[in-house]
Amino acid sequence: MTDACPEAFVALADRLADAARAEVRPHYRKRHEVEDKADTSPVTAIDRASEAAMRRLIAAEMPAHGVVGEEYGRDRPDAEFVWVLDPIDGTKRFITGFPTFGTLIALLQDGVPLLGVIEMPALEERWIGARGRPSIRRSAAGDEEVSTQARGALDGASLSASSPHMFDGEDAAAFERLRRSVKLPLYGGDCYSYGLLAEGLLDLVVEANMDPYDYLAQVAVVEGAGGVMTDWQGRPLGLESDGRTIAAGDPALHAAALACLAGA
Amino acid sequence: MTDACPEAFVALADRLADAARAEVRPHYRKRHEVEDKADTSPVTAIDRASEAAMRRLIAAEMPAHGVVGEEYGRDRPDAEFVWVLDPIDGTKRFITGFPTFGTLIALLQDGVPLLGVIEMPALEERWIGARGRPSIRRSAAGDEEVSTQARGALDGASLSASSPHMFDGEDAAAFERLRRSVKLPLYGGDCYSYGLLAEGLLDLVVEANMDPYDYLAQVAVVEGAGGVMTDWQGRPLGLESDGRTIAAGDPALHAAALACLAGA
Repeated sequence: MTDACPEAFVALADRLADAARAEVRPHYRKRHEVEDKADTSPVTAIDRASEAAMRRLIAAEMPAHGVVGEEYGRDRPDAEFVWVLDPIDGTKRFITGFPTFGTLIALLQDGVPLLGVIEMPALEERWIGARGRPSIRRSAAGDEEVSTQARGALDGASLSASSPHMFDGEDAAAFERLRRSVKLPLYGGDCYSYGLLAEGLLDLVVEANMDPYDYLAQVAVVEGAGGVMTDWQGRPLGLESDGRTIAAGDPALHAAALACLAGA
Repeated sequence: MTDACPEAFVALADRLADAARAEVRPHYRKRHEVEDKADTSPVTAIDRASEAAMRRLIAAEMPAHGVVGEEYGRDRPDAEFVWVLDPIDGTKRFITGFPTFGTLIALLQDGVPLLGVIEMPALEERWIGARGRPSIRRSAAGDEEVSTQARGALDGASLSASSPHMFDGEDAAAFERLRRSVKLPLYGGDCYSYGLLAEGLLDLVVEANMDPYDYLAQVAVVEGAGGVMTDWQGRPLGLESDGRTIAAGDPALHAAALACLAGA
């Protein structure tokens, strides 16, 4: 469990991201292709084509691995190695033409995140994190190691969430408490926020009502850049987490934000 | 007043946007250059360099024109032609590495928007609107005419605002009413949202507590694409507006949103 991620898995994850980009990018900002007119929207078709392309690659190269995806459900989720796929994270952004939607690819070993890719089809960049190596940003400019910024205190921190309306009841009160404690609250980042946190540009990303394919890819990216990512109780994230997630650039800020969310 | 915008003014606005891009783009995602450590932040220095570069071009080419800018104040605001400049709109996005910050360039004739440019330094695209011609998106792929989408009814519309926290008191209640009436509320777009509205991808952008340099450039872009942009009473926007703005893809949606904001 503490071994480094095999290079073959990193290479496959990179090819999965290439496949997703090839499916999704041609439809970006094509408004007549992404209109949400009916139950079976064109966006769903793009989502499915992208996930199907990734599943074909996994089946061909790692047939013993399990796959959990947004569109096609769970296939052997109890395998030692399980891929977790979100073909389009930030669907609302994708539909409205913002470039900050992405594709999320995680690989779990025995339920624990081993590898993660945050792929940005419109921006042609991706972050790759894998156990035992530093996280990188991969783009046309080449690969660059990334690292988080140690901020420590909430009152100097930036905070991102996809939307203030993603929190219900007590969670909304907890988030509002945290939002008022930080220096710079921002919305609308979706998966891109986690890449910016890995770059040391954002300090906290706090979200709720997330599905496993919405957050598992970010764990290895954030941790390989020096950050911390858990649920709101500080527990490791897995397929059965409760959908509340927090990522922080350093352990002290993570602890301060957890205490604030808990009302301490 | 109803004459088309002279080509020389459009060409100058394009060169102003080039100058702003040259000043701002090199600093994008350079975290140590944009940290906000003190009163005279590095971002302010980039803001000033960009506005100064634009002011030099205007002074050289159109010395009789006035200039109103975020950083260097008002110079002959009563001239027939007045340029209104925001070197970095979306400073919070710029600092945190999101690509959706921009440079805003407006030209007023007798106080009325004649020309506007929404320049996106990180994304290398810009929208240009000028009285008497269709609005365009200019990018490495060339120029393309853009047009808004007629949506008509609030319950099928998307709505963007930079942040839900930009509204105070009664304005916050009015915005919340509108937010609950639309299909898809989004935050964090800053000036980019207006370009997406001109493209027909977003339907409404509603904001408040804006300064003239935050909104005047968008008017010609939105109107030249078939949209409507006014204050919350439906009045034309100018240097003396109250900072509440609404842009809509079509007149029927504009009217419905105004009525909702007013509590009707």
